[in-house]
Amino acid sequence: MPRRIIIIGGVAGGMSAATRLRRLDESAIITVFEQGAYTGFANCGIPYALGKVIEHDEELILRTPNDFKQRFNIDVHLRVEVINIDRARHSVSVRTEGEDRIHQFVYDKLILAQGAEAFRPPCAGAELDNIATMQTIADLQKVHDLLSDRNAKHVCVIGAGFIGIEVAENLRKLGVDVSIVEYGSHVFPPIDGEMAEILHSELRDNGIELFLNESAQKIDKSQIILSSGLVLPADLVILAAGVRARIGLAKQAGLVMGATGVSVNTHMQTSDPDIYAVGDMVETQNNIMEKPAMLALAGPANRQGRMAADHICGKTVNYHGNFGTSVCQVFSLTLGFVGLSTQALRQLGHDPLSITVHPPDHAGYFPGSQNMTIRLAFQKETGHIMGAQIIGKGGVDKRIDVLATAMQFGSTVFDLEHLELGYAPPYGSAKDAVNMAGFVASNVLRGDCRIVQAEQLTREKFDKLQVVDVRSPEEFARGHLHQAVNLPLNDLRHQLATLDSSRPTLVYCQVGYRGYLAYCILRQLGFDVVNLDGGFKTVIQGGYQSLCS
Amino acid sequence: MPRRIIIIGGVAGGMSAATRLRRLDESAIITVFEQGAYTGFANCGIPYALGKVIEHDEELILRTPNDFKQRFNIDVHLRVEVINIDRARHSVSVRTEGEDRIHQFVYDKLILAQGAEAFRPPCAGAELDNIATMQTIADLQKVHDLLSDRNAKHVCVIGAGFIGIEVAENLRKLGVDVSIVEYGSHVFPPIDGEMAEILHSELRDNGIELFLNESAQKIDKSQIILSSGLVLPADLVILAAGVRARIGLAKQAGLVMGATGVSVNTHMQTSDPDIYAVGDMVETQNNIMEKPAMLALAGPANRQGRMAADHICGKTVNYHGNFGTSVCQVFSLTLGFVGLSTQALRQLGHDPLSITVHPPDHAGYFPGSQNMTIRLAFQKETGHIMGAQIIGKGGVDKRIDVLATAMQFGSTVFDLEHLELGYAPPYGSAKDAVNMAGFVASNVLRGDCRIVQAEQLTREKFDKLQVVDVRSPEEFARGHLHQAVNLPLNDLRHQLATLDSSRPTLVYCQVGYRGYLAYCILRQLGFDVVNLDGGFKTVIQGGYQSLCS
Repeated sequence: MPRRIIIIGGVAGGMSAATRLRRLDESAIITVFEQGAYTGFANCGIPYALGKVIEHDEELILRTPNDFKQRFNIDVHLRVEVINIDRARHSVSVRTEGEDRIHQFVYDKLILAQGAEAFRPPCAGAELDNIATMQTIADLQKVHDLLSDRNAKHVCVIGAGFIGIEVAENLRKLGVDVSIVEYGSHVFPPIDGEMAEILHSELRDNGIELFLNESAQKIDKSQIILSSGLVLPADLVILAAGVRARIGLAKQAGLVMGATGVSVNTHMQTSDPDIYAVGDMVETQNNIMEKPAMLALAGPANRQGRMAADHICGKTVNYHGNFGTSVCQVFSLTLGFVGLSTQALRQLGHDPLSITVHPPDHAGYFPGSQNMTIRLAFQKETGHIMGAQIIGKGGVDKRIDVLATAMQFGSTVFDLEHLELGYAPPYGSAKDAVNMAGFVASNVLRGDCRIVQAEQLTREKFDKLQVVDVRSPEEFARGHLHQAVNLPLNDLRHQLATLDSSRPTLVYCQVGYRGYLAYCILRQLGFDVVNLDGGFKTVIQGGYQSLCS
Repeated sequence: MPRRIIIIGGVAGGMSAATRLRRLDESAIITVFEQGAYTGFANCGIPYALGKVIEHDEELILRTPNDFKQRFNIDVHLRVEVINIDRARHSVSVRTEGEDRIHQFVYDKLILAQGAEAFRPPCAGAELDNIATMQTIADLQKVHDLLSDRNAKHVCVIGAGFIGIEVAENLRKLGVDVSIVEYGSHVFPPIDGEMAEILHSELRDNGIELFLNESAQKIDKSQIILSSGLVLPADLVILAAGVRARIGLAKQAGLVMGATGVSVNTHMQTSDPDIYAVGDMVETQNNIMEKPAMLALAGPANRQGRMAADHICGKTVNYHGNFGTSVCQVFSLTLGFVGLSTQALRQLGHDPLSITVHPPDHAGYFPGSQNMTIRLAFQKETGHIMGAQIIGKGGVDKRIDVLATAMQFGSTVFDLEHLELGYAPPYGSAKDAVNMAGFVASNVLRGDCRIVQAEQLTREKFDKLQVVDVRSPEEFARGHLHQAVNLPLNDLRHQLATLDSSRPTLVYCQVGYRGYLAYCILRQLGFDVVNLDGGFKTVIQGGYQSLCS
């Protein structure tokens, strides 16, 4: 008897499962029910199709049901809702859009791949027709229409996660006014505030108005009222305030749920061994949190689909959990992120160390070199890396993937010192950006350098400190920390007499390196000294202007 | 008593050691003797300064002796030759260029960082003044002068390794005719011939004449005679035929030598525990060969210098050996390489498996997507990755660094399937290029797909095979394998009757994916079938045109 496999959901995870099943089992009867109007489309490309970076919406449609039929002998039914799962009878009840009749289909194995739905904030007016989400091609076409039909001039994006930021950037490319309303205190809430500040500047420099610590109170036809009472003009409102696992059907079928999605084991099986679930609707192990969590990313969804297929076909597979590696374009910048932020780790009760470096993407003497900012969080006891955040113009996607790879093998910061990465002047440095982060973190962990974070400082603390700026007089003149004295590094050894070795001392430079050299000199001379992590640059771009004179 | 440390050689490894020593020990007396006219210069940038990509030669000089004195209190003596090491007395004898007097300096610890010298092929005329190497700023200035003084029109580069290729590319940018003479059968001898063929096309397309399996027999003032008897015009000859560890002084001092350089332990100590050696002059463990070998790369040299300093200062450090991660620009292409090639592995007695894939650098639906070629070599028994070679236009440096990182943690090809890499349309794909390589390799290793390499095929073998091209008729018409029948994948299930299931069958497509799908269908129907690794693209770009009709 051929296996009968039904898959509910025909996008990333579902279609990965379907095609892998076919490769492994030519005789299986594979049926996919998709509620939407398209299958096999590139949902990650939607913001770029909005901005016409991807010129035609059709380019997002990678495969049609006909393609799947011809190439894979898979039956994909569009606009079909599965309204019930009868686990005892191994059957599902389905209804095609616009039809009354309900059909039953039996399965040997069922795969749920229903994804997640946009979270709709509970604000009045949230059902108005000038409100759109950005998940499907239908959403995209609705926004195209709203923009042209209403000649929309002011668009408000609610939510500053990946989708919200990508949508905002692409709307700016269309020339409309864009504001972003974010409930958290900074964009990309999973990253640290200091890092997000760099993105705030970039967004504002590109004409986007940011409203942080705000939420939508009421949405009208042409305006939006924020929780603070502020009123913004808004012809069009895009909801990008996160997603929620689409668990209605699974719940109704009595499958075990986690806190944020359907529970699955490492084979992607739900509590019913004949029902698998994959993608945005499930909870999988977050390897840093060490607990299951929802993760709405295409890569893991695809892999999970593949794995469910493997397991159905009798292969030994185990999902290894997630690290949440992600990357996002923010105008001229790239944000890379993996693991958890320092802030998130603290909220979970960890006490991580963190360091910030600003290394160049490639050799400084080769044209076009640009500095990036890397922030690593790592375990105080072992040096295990728990999170990495990178922002810069070039080479960010490379470094976040290298760090993500290292983390997936259980890397410590000491391992980063040894990493042998490709170097030629157009691509990197003899000591790569990742090595540099490793050197600094290892120095801190081995006790070779004591650092202090800008966030730990206040102007009041400066009263008790001897603050020494070891940059050049020109750099000092352009701005410096409160109460700092300027003693350029190269003069330090000759002018030690001007310092008071009995006072606790804070040294700093622009990015941390000269500060570290000054630290080495002073500490060996008996000073009680700390170096400012990431230097003055971290202070400025991290939003700590209050520490400056 | 302060430590007295002498370092011989003031470039990458030597200066990394010197500055690290100062950071760890403010009181040490650190003296550097450098035979050349510069210290702290970027030798990897020399080819690019030749081509004026780096506009002024001075940009390569990152630090002067004065900088080292001011910032690090390190004494760097230029144009000084160390002529003897007296190990018993812990002293070195040095002579400054142009002076007769010999000075003695005592050391507590000595670090040798003398680098390597260009190999000079034993051909008549090799001392002519129109012959130059490309290692130092003096070399660079000599070549600038030769090019302008002689109004050189024809330059011959001997050797097609990293330096040779970078120099050739940069000379083309100056508008001169360039030929490359390479002793091996292809450029970049450490990579596989099929991969090098891609570079051959790129070099030729950019106007470079390649003479492979050739060497210089005789060099004259205006021409060069090759071993085949061929005569090339050559106003200027650049020697880039590899380097040899500069071991004269170490040998004279009675230190233990390896086959290719000075022997050191994992602390970078030579056979004399008070003498360290680092960089291009030493042999370090090659982690794939599992034996010591010379490696002339800046990154490892820097790290080794740092480690020698650490060990001198009492820190516990161990050099982890090398994987030889490297990257090189070749006009519009990038070559990335780590570990060993399939060919090199076979020469060492291994019997690796290998696979070739041609994945896109980022999502195909996002503008600018370009395919790269990845070739992985891995252990048949365990799946451990032993080598990776990548050539493409974009994203190559990222993938080679990811693979190099994975290899340094002992990765198998199965691990690559699980790697969670950053995905957004401008940067990657939901299934990243590295994942794709992992999927294909794992399929082969698990027995889910049997492949054959183009190199294993001959036209004679085709006589015994049923060769099925599953591409479209249009693709087939543009060229196909000898004796192939065209049966497009989407028609395969309906036209099975046209195939003979009793004959051994070879299927192929353009890059390997449709061939794999056809393989899955046919194998499950009982065919004795193999898929062509990397598809027709690998045949064409790998130089196997003789297999085609």
